[in-house]
Amino acid sequence: MTLTEQTMLPPGSTIGILGGGQLGRMLSLAASRLGFQCHIFDPKWAGPASKVSRFETNAEYSDIEAVLNFAKNCDVVTYEFENVPNLTAKTAGSVAPLYPGARALDVAQDRLTEKTFIQNEAKVPVARFEPVNSVHDLRRATKKLGLPAVLKTRRLGYDGKGQYIIKTEGDIEPAWDAMQNAPAILEQFIAFKREISVIAARGVTGETAAYPLIENVHKNHILHTSTCPAQGDDGRAQGLAIQIMSALNYIGVMATEFFELGDGSLIVNEIAPRVHNSGHWTQDAGCIDQFELHIRAITGWPLGSTQPKHKMEMTNLIGDDVKNWETLAAETHCFVHLYGKNDIKHGRKMGHINRIMR
Amino acid sequence: MTLTEQTMLPPGSTIGILGGGQLGRMLSLAASRLGFQCHIFDPKWAGPASKVSRFETNAEYSDIEAVLNFAKNCDVVTYEFENVPNLTAKTAGSVAPLYPGARALDVAQDRLTEKTFIQNEAKVPVARFEPVNSVHDLRRATKKLGLPAVLKTRRLGYDGKGQYIIKTEGDIEPAWDAMQNAPAILEQFIAFKREISVIAARGVTGETAAYPLIENVHKNHILHTSTCPAQGDDGRAQGLAIQIMSALNYIGVMATEFFELGDGSLIVNEIAPRVHNSGHWTQDAGCIDQFELHIRAITGWPLGSTQPKHKMEMTNLIGDDVKNWETLAAETHCFVHLYGKNDIKHGRKMGHINRIMR
Repeated sequence: MTLTEQTMLPPGSTIGILGGGQLGRMLSLAASRLGFQCHIFDPKWAGPASKVSRFETNAEYSDIEAVLNFAKNCDVVTYEFENVPNLTAKTAGSVAPLYPGARALDVAQDRLTEKTFIQNEAKVPVARFEPVNSVHDLRRATKKLGLPAVLKTRRLGYDGKGQYIIKTEGDIEPAWDAMQNAPAILEQFIAFKREISVIAARGVTGETAAYPLIENVHKNHILHTSTCPAQGDDGRAQGLAIQIMSALNYIGVMATEFFELGDGSLIVNEIAPRVHNSGHWTQDAGCIDQFELHIRAITGWPLGSTQPKHKMEMTNLIGDDVKNWETLAAETHCFVHLYGKNDIKHGRKMGHINRIMR
Repeated sequence: MTLTEQTMLPPGSTIGILGGGQLGRMLSLAASRLGFQCHIFDPKWAGPASKVSRFETNAEYSDIEAVLNFAKNCDVVTYEFENVPNLTAKTAGSVAPLYPGARALDVAQDRLTEKTFIQNEAKVPVARFEPVNSVHDLRRATKKLGLPAVLKTRRLGYDGKGQYIIKTEGDIEPAWDAMQNAPAILEQFIAFKREISVIAARGVTGETAAYPLIENVHKNHILHTSTCPAQGDDGRAQGLAIQIMSALNYIGVMATEFFELGDGSLIVNEIAPRVHNSGHWTQDAGCIDQFELHIRAITGWPLGSTQPKHKMEMTNLIGDDVKNWETLAAETHCFVHLYGKNDIKHGRKMGHINRIMR
């Protein structure tokens, strides 16, 4: 099902969210501001999103009956993570409008499909890549792309998990072993100058909006800080992001991560069909934030202003970082956002802070 | 019970809110940002606040057992309206810290107590007033204060309800009849130049913070717009507000409404021991908003910055005004806040918009 161009979902409508983590939580808080109510679907009870939402369904994603019941009670369904099982999303989409659509999930769930789509259909540059299904394939692919190169599982990798850098021929066998026979993709190693991202949205009518360029710094493969506006030409990166969204006939907020090379050229690292950690600074920037922007896009509302009033810096609070909340709460021009997670774990995203920069 | 000066309630703590309307809703959304969870006590099921909160108790305010059970499960208890029965608040306060304290309720619930306290204990100017318990009292009081004068019920008036302007002696009898024998107060009629308010907070340690001067325009006795910063001397009005808070040993956000006279002098019209409609603009002003400020104050957190980054204007959406949401959502630099109320009624506050002014 789809919303027509004429349809704006009125306040009071119910937004279904597949996945109940911090992104679902912040989507729900933004939806509430606009008078919507949210229904969270998550196998676990009382996660970060459910704690602030009107309705909650706890069932496995494979429980098709539960998914159908959930979707029947929603006016639109979205998801907070790209690894929601595709069948779950499509099932929900059979009874309620599903935004972004299932095609976005197909593309974003599989690195090989993603790279192929971006390169061949959206005509946007990516690193050279080869599919790898055996150690034999891997040898051949390393010859073709040269070393160093990065071997990645096609599915379910995030925050650097399921990745292996192959520097020499001696790394080939251990790299393949690390994949545990999962279908993989070998990518040319990119010696990038910096990592940037674009958060943009596309609405039901094809209207688009993009925030300025964001510069991202990772630590231990996890996003550490995002700064916006970053130096450089906004328009080029925004244009490429919108090119991908248009090729997907995308509706909602999408994040596009880029590597910027030494010569200033941009190649896409990956896309995320959802709100994104590198867009959290928008919450305190004086414009419509990425969570509200996504809600506006999927409910057929006008998108609103994506021009921040201040330079912003977002810093993630990972694991024990969150224990520092007392100090952070005392800092001027620093906005604290905590996710309501019950237990601190190593590497777990517990919250973030947004600083207004002078 | 009270929090000690050393206690900062950690994220994950439960904040109890007596009352489940739009102020409770926006308090709950702000508390969630900081990782707290909220428990709403309201006789009605699934009101604006409960829809976005983790826990809900539905019981009458007079159900002392329910109030005790509620408070036992909260780390701190607050209220969203000053007409919560005093016994209810005191009962909750017997098992959990109650902020603002019961003294603030005593004072704010009764116009005679309020005026007497502000004038005699806080030593802040108010309009001249006389208690009125009979038509006989009323005649005497009009002689003492002169006409015109305003007769008000001592309790439970808001948005101009329970008020009667006495212009001539002929108005005395109908005015008293309109009070329906309720204890009343006659106040000198103030021909003010403008209405202004101060939203300020006082923390557990005695720390205070105040937003700049706010100018308010009413229509049909209901707040229509609030603008901040308003022209004029912030410091004087802020100082008087803090003087009242200190006299009350107040903890939390308090609103002080002033009349500004032709000669620039200020007299207090009334205080509200809670977040206030004239502070809603803070949500999009680039500083800590009044809802988070209240949560910070009652949980022992540092108060944070109350300096807006922009000039702001808040406009209430009353009754059918909210039907205009499509147009408002399309306006740049306009933030829409809707309360999730099920039915539109004449005079009901359905939402508000905050505009960043150029």
